Amino acid sequence: MKNKQDLTERLLSGELVYDGALLKVRRDVVRLPDGREASREYVRHPGAVAVVALFPDGRVLLERQYRHPLAREFLELPAGKLEPGEPHLETAKRELLEETGYAAAEWRVLGRYHPSNGSTNQVFHVTIARALDRRSEPLDTNETLGLGWFTPGDVRELLLGNEILDGLSLTALSWGLIAGAIA
Amino acid sequence: MKNKQDLTERLLSGELVYDGALLKVRRDVVRLPDGREASREYVRHPGAVAVVALFPDGRVLLERQYRHPLAREFLELPAGKLEPGEPHLETAKRELLEETGYAAAEWRVLGRYHPSNGSTNQVFHVTIARALDRRSEPLDTNETLGLGWFTPGDVRELLLGNEILDGLSLTALSWGLIAGAIA
Repeated sequence: MKNKQDLTERLLSGELVYDGALLKVRRDVVRLPDGREASREYVRHPGAVAVVALFPDGRVLLERQYRHPLAREFLELPAGKLEPGEPHLETAKRELLEETGYAAAEWRVLGRYHPSNGSTNQVFHVTIARALDRRSEPLDTNETLGLGWFTPGDVRELLLGNEILDGLSLTALSWGLIAGAIA
Repeated sequence: MKNKQDLTERLLSGELVYDGALLKVRRDVVRLPDGREASREYVRHPGAVAVVALFPDGRVLLERQYRHPLAREFLELPAGKLEPGEPHLETAKRELLEETGYAAAEWRVLGRYHPSNGSTNQVFHVTIARALDRRSEPLDTNETLGLGWFTPGDVRELLLGNEILDGLSLTALSWGLIAGAIA
C-alpha cells in the first residue's frame, strides 16, 4: 500500500439528533488529520443476521418478503434484527424457526461485515445452518410471503441475473459460493 | 414458492421525522394485509457506486479509508455517494479519478442492490473498469489512506479470511469473482 498515512478522525463533539424506535441518528464533529473540522452524520442501528439454510442435497432456502422502504418484494435469506444483548447465533436460530418453521442441528458463522460503513455503524452477520428439522409451519406468517428451495446452480443464476437485490442475501450467497459452503 | 400471498403494505400516512444534511428519516404508518396498522421507520439516502478497477494482469485496486461510524480503517474499493441527478456511471468515473488518479476506457455495470432493505431505501451500484490510464496523483488525499493492487488469489483470501469488512466492497468483489470479471 502506497501513501500510507494516519487518517484517524478525532471526535470533538457529538449529539443524538434523532432518537427513533429503531433508528438513532448521530451528528459528530471531528478533527481531520490536516487540522480542519468536519461534520459526520450516521445511523446507529443494532444490525442483523442472515441464515444460509442448506438441505443435504445442497439446496438453499429462500423466502419472499415485502420491504416498505423500497415498497416491493424481495427474494431473501431468512434474517432478522439483532436484539440487545442476544448473541447473533441465537437471533439466527430464532428467526429461522419463526420465519420458516425449521430448526438446525449444525451451525457455522461465515463472517460479519458493515453494509454501509459511511452512513451507519450497522453490522450484519452471516451464518450457515445444516441438519435441518421441520418443527412447525412458519410461525410468523405476517412477515413471509413464501418459501422456496434453490439449487446451487439456481443461486448462481439468480446472482448473475441480478435477481437477488437484498444486500444481505446477495453478500451471504456470493460469499457462501466462494467459501464452498453452497456447493 | 409455497404459501404465496400478497403482503403488500399500504401507506396510510407518513412524515419526515429527521431532515439532515446527508440522511433523512421517514416514519410511515402502513396497513398490513391482515388489516392491522404498523409503523415503519427508515432512512432516505442517495446511495453509492463502487468501482472494481482491473489491471490487464487481473489485479484489483483497493484502498484504505477511515470510516467514522465504525471509528476504524477499512480496505475498500474506490466508491462514492451518488449526487442528485448524476448517472451512477459518471459518479463512478469521478470517484475513481479523485480517489486514485486513474481513468478507465472500458466500463461495465455488474448490477445494483439494496444494502439494508429493512431500514433504508439506499441503492448501491457495482461497476467494472478496465483499460486504466494513470492521469494524476490521487486528487483527494484527505479521503484515501493508500492504494494497493491485489491479485484474484489475494482477493479470494481476503474474502475467506473475513478481512473485507466493508459491505459494498465485499459484495462487489464476491460478485465479481462469481461473474468471472475478477479472474
